[in-house]
Amino acid sequence: KLSELLTDDMAAVDQVILDLAGAHVELIPKISRHLISSGGKRLRPLLTLAAARLAGYEGDQHVTMAASIEFMHTATLLHDDVVDESGLRRGNLTARLLWGNQAAVLVGDYLLGQAFRMMVSVGEIEALRCLSDAAAAIAEGEVMQLSHKNYLACTEDSYFQVIEAKTAKLFIAACEVGAIMAGLEPELKLRLAAFGRHLGLAFQISDDLLDYTPESGIGKLVGDDFREGKITLPVILAYEKGDAEARSFWEKAFAMEEDERIGELDQAVHKIKVSGAAARCQDYADQQAKEAVAALSYWPDTELKEALLETARFAAARSRSKSVVDA
Amino acid sequence: KLSELLTDDMAAVDQVILDLAGAHVELIPKISRHLISSGGKRLRPLLTLAAARLAGYEGDQHVTMAASIEFMHTATLLHDDVVDESGLRRGNLTARLLWGNQAAVLVGDYLLGQAFRMMVSVGEIEALRCLSDAAAAIAEGEVMQLSHKNYLACTEDSYFQVIEAKTAKLFIAACEVGAIMAGLEPELKLRLAAFGRHLGLAFQISDDLLDYTPESGIGKLVGDDFREGKITLPVILAYEKGDAEARSFWEKAFAMEEDERIGELDQAVHKIKVSGAAARCQDYADQQAKEAVAALSYWPDTELKEALLETARFAAARSRSKSVVDA
Repeated sequence: KLSELLTDDMAAVDQVILDLAGAHVELIPKISRHLISSGGKRLRPLLTLAAARLAGYEGDQHVTMAASIEFMHTATLLHDDVVDESGLRRGNLTARLLWGNQAAVLVGDYLLGQAFRMMVSVGEIEALRCLSDAAAAIAEGEVMQLSHKNYLACTEDSYFQVIEAKTAKLFIAACEVGAIMAGLEPELKLRLAAFGRHLGLAFQISDDLLDYTPESGIGKLVGDDFREGKITLPVILAYEKGDAEARSFWEKAFAMEEDERIGELDQAVHKIKVSGAAARCQDYADQQAKEAVAALSYWPDTELKEALLETARFAAARSRSKSVVDA
Repeated sequence: KLSELLTDDMAAVDQVILDLAGAHVELIPKISRHLISSGGKRLRPLLTLAAARLAGYEGDQHVTMAASIEFMHTATLLHDDVVDESGLRRGNLTARLLWGNQAAVLVGDYLLGQAFRMMVSVGEIEALRCLSDAAAAIAEGEVMQLSHKNYLACTEDSYFQVIEAKTAKLFIAACEVGAIMAGLEPELKLRLAAFGRHLGLAFQISDDLLDYTPESGIGKLVGDDFREGKITLPVILAYEKGDAEARSFWEKAFAMEEDERIGELDQAVHKIKVSGAAARCQDYADQQAKEAVAALSYWPDTELKEALLETARFAAARSRSKSVVDA
């Protein structure tokens, strides 16, 4: 497993995270630690560490960059929970419920600022470009998603535009930054970026399918996206290919209030299954995982590369398996 | 006036702001423009432009930096309105009321990301250091302020710690970035930074006093801080120096619910006046303005310098005057 191959590097990342400044404002480390130590697998910093090592990096500044990326990610989780009015994350109460929306927004801002401060301290301008692009893109993707809320006519294209921005960009940046630290040549850097992109897309498609897969046995709450009116790939496919009765079901469901809609979840899950939308979603995710694997074909088969490939395969397979890659 | 001396530079800043990317996500320019064109005087970008010119800068990249700083500031306003649950800003409905808290949080994140992206495009690592420090400090100051809510035992020291972080840091950075762009020598850069710091402190103290100054005739809503339970300098001074009856008034008021507390506003205003706290607050602000003026003593008396000094004096004098420097 990736985390086992990078134990020392990850321990260094954890240390940076725990040493988190802002110690004179108690609330900041408290909230950050709640989220950071609540069982996420830290997939993004692992990718930065792995990409740097795969590209032959021998220094230790990739640790700072990896920690920055985890801070950026944590900041978006804090804000997402406020935006989605979520009650649970990874089976724990969300920070916004424990400390209030206000603290969640502000500590998110702090982590974002701190992430930039740490990246700037490394002083690698190309990495900064990559990460500031990602920061703007993530927020742009989230705004796009918000403006598609309950909008059933949303196309596959616009779904992919949203997940490219809100999810894949940070996976791309995580891999690219590792490559930049190692001074990898442009063509190879692009391959690592492509690996990150396909992994990110596989991950998000699989995540969106999980929301309609109660039998997965995974801690994730089924039905969150449905209740919140997020139009994700399973719904888009089920609606596109649905007969008149199915289309009418989806139209009525997404015209309902949240509380009423959630009563239709079983029907929604059933329709996504029988229409073949679930299987098609899984195909999309598997396809992305395959492309991720292909992106690394240049590199020799080492243990590290194999662990990266395994990560990509698992990312796509979460709704089939209990061996979760939880980010 | 500063803005009249820098008309061309400010027009260029406005253009950058209006050209704001994210055009394929309608909501982003809509919300940004609502806030950016709603009558703020853009004090911070003006300071960057003025500092750069005062320091002899002749290029045009200070425009990008100035626009970034305004984006950073706009992002914090969007988030502050969510955190404070504000209904009005500069007499207009807040973005969070018009488009929802969710959009306000996310568009704030986008502007922050965009600010960094623009700063990185200029590629001046020292300016990036300065601004990423400011970004983390601002959020830290806001968290500190949040954790002091309704906490009357808050000292003058901790008040100054909060406003140094949440307000002065961005004024410091605005001036310092101008100096950095001009390649100013370290000692002079520090003087410009000191000017920004004292101006920022004068501005915030004056702003906090305005909240208890209904006779100022300024559009700002009186009583917002009081209702929200923010313990600002006027309250700290009135409580510190108050007799038993006054102290008991403040203790009861800040133990009340917001809606009840606001009924005590006239009393609060009265107590701040008769206790001499208002006058002392004004002295503090004037003192900061004086120190701001002194910080520029090195530079010859030009029209530009005079406009900067005038800005500092106005910043401190807002509760006495209708000639508002509204940031």
